[in-house]
Amino acid sequence: MGRVVIGVDLGGTNLRAAILSPTGDILERRKEDTHAAEGWSSVVARLIDNIKRQRDIAARKGLEVCAVGVGAPGVIQGDKGIVVKSPNFPDWNNLPLKDHLEKALDIPVYLENDANAAALGEQWRGAGQGIQSMILLTLGTGVGGGIILDGKVWHGADGMAGEIGHMTLIPNGRPCTCGNTGCLEMYASARGIVQSYREALGKPADSLRQITSEQVYEAARTGNEIAVRVMNDMGRMLGIGIAGLINIFNMERVVIGGGVKDAWALFIDATREEVMKRAFEIPARRAEMSPSLLGDDAGVVGAASVALGFQKEAC
Amino acid sequence: MGRVVIGVDLGGTNLRAAILSPTGDILERRKEDTHAAEGWSSVVARLIDNIKRQRDIAARKGLEVCAVGVGAPGVIQGDKGIVVKSPNFPDWNNLPLKDHLEKALDIPVYLENDANAAALGEQWRGAGQGIQSMILLTLGTGVGGGIILDGKVWHGADGMAGEIGHMTLIPNGRPCTCGNTGCLEMYASARGIVQSYREALGKPADSLRQITSEQVYEAARTGNEIAVRVMNDMGRMLGIGIAGLINIFNMERVVIGGGVKDAWALFIDATREEVMKRAFEIPARRAEMSPSLLGDDAGVVGAASVALGFQKEAC
Repeated sequence: MGRVVIGVDLGGTNLRAAILSPTGDILERRKEDTHAAEGWSSVVARLIDNIKRQRDIAARKGLEVCAVGVGAPGVIQGDKGIVVKSPNFPDWNNLPLKDHLEKALDIPVYLENDANAAALGEQWRGAGQGIQSMILLTLGTGVGGGIILDGKVWHGADGMAGEIGHMTLIPNGRPCTCGNTGCLEMYASARGIVQSYREALGKPADSLRQITSEQVYEAARTGNEIAVRVMNDMGRMLGIGIAGLINIFNMERVVIGGGVKDAWALFIDATREEVMKRAFEIPARRAEMSPSLLGDDAGVVGAASVALGFQKEAC
Repeated sequence: MGRVVIGVDLGGTNLRAAILSPTGDILERRKEDTHAAEGWSSVVARLIDNIKRQRDIAARKGLEVCAVGVGAPGVIQGDKGIVVKSPNFPDWNNLPLKDHLEKALDIPVYLENDANAAALGEQWRGAGQGIQSMILLTLGTGVGGGIILDGKVWHGADGMAGEIGHMTLIPNGRPCTCGNTGCLEMYASARGIVQSYREALGKPADSLRQITSEQVYEAARTGNEIAVRVMNDMGRMLGIGIAGLINIFNMERVVIGGGVKDAWALFIDATREEVMKRAFEIPARRAEMSPSLLGDDAGVVGAASVALGFQKEAC
């Protein structure tokens, strides 16, 4: 019987699950609402249902699921299989997610932080193939980060490393939800772009509630000067952050994902210029900046790679 | 015959060499001027003389030198034994220092970047004992950095990782010698402190040429309000940088060395306050900030540890 692995990307909004071959090809994918507000037991039940459904699909194709990998937001203790806490799931406190899933599924389950999983996915099958040291920056509503060194995720002492979105860029800058001021996330995320656009127009906070980052990109693409400048400034801020990372890590690659990646051409020149201006030349030339290749699939692919790493023989 | 190792710290100003036991006790130390301006062949000859003299001292005590470790400033390719380039030795270009020394000494020689060597020294016998992930910040004329992850130095793809002094803190801040503006080094180094003091007094650049950072510390200790504020501001800037590192690395410890460490009590409260305000709580509490314990010996101790790591059986 052929073996497959299930990769799950559990987000605050979307729950994605995919069946993958042991070489990382996606055979089947499914996306549904997470309904995070319904509370942990409901989300876990939905997760179990989803995985069981995927297992049934696999079985009908004559394939056996050898392992499940789950990428989840927040602080994960992978070795204990616990979600310590998660900004997207306020009622998750030291939730033994691995145990819950393994009991219900009778398949080995492995957890990883979602941003780290996405970085592993890009390294395995995306923009980081063949690369041993890379940083993934996910520019979405916020800015997430995953750090890969010597081919492995750097988790840090408490599993909380990689919070690159919360490097300070402007010491007395915009207040961030994390309690700091001037975080990279406040300038290089979709939310930051909308705020910059609003500020550039001189409008109060609530007058542009309907404006989305996509509309700012669209305005920039059609030559709106304010929008062009906003995207250029965003690119510069991202470049300042990446230049610092390059001087610290001297890594081979920076992969940029998340929804803001779709506006690549609107910011990347400013980012590159800032990096070349601010970082040391040798590491700045070394660190290639690439857009994510896997997009929304990065999380499920990376989660599957985590599970496969632990179950090499069974898969 | 007992075995010892020689650790060398080759700085732009001072050349330090020490004889160490395999457990890292310093049995003998020697310091002389480097005379960097005399050019590479003269510096290498002085280095060889110095090591030979230490070997003779060891021999008279009935001890055999099993390996030599050298910490040198700049870009080092340790595996090839080459100093690629060095800000302190402008005429060193791809200098095969390991070969030069091994031919003259007939002892195995190993190279490491000086800041990395100091970090390894602190980890082995200083403020980082028992710690697997730590960052050493050396606050001297500039700000150097060494990153230890999983107990090993993180070198980066070109051996240039750890340039923590050149993270941008203030995007349009003070021009740095590296070409960037607003680097951490421009605020948290001895030079930065003197500049801040000068600016606080409203004096032009050359009017305080005679002022040293030590005099600023002394003024702060005797209650001079301007000097107190300058040291407090320096502590804040350092804290902003360290908070970013904590969010990125979630490391166990930050060790602070270099001459500015002597002013510890004048800046550390502001640093800690800024870290707690800006970094996530769990990693901020995890990352203990400690002064260097080895001081000027960190480099020779770390260089010795590198050599011992490669020559475990011979030593």
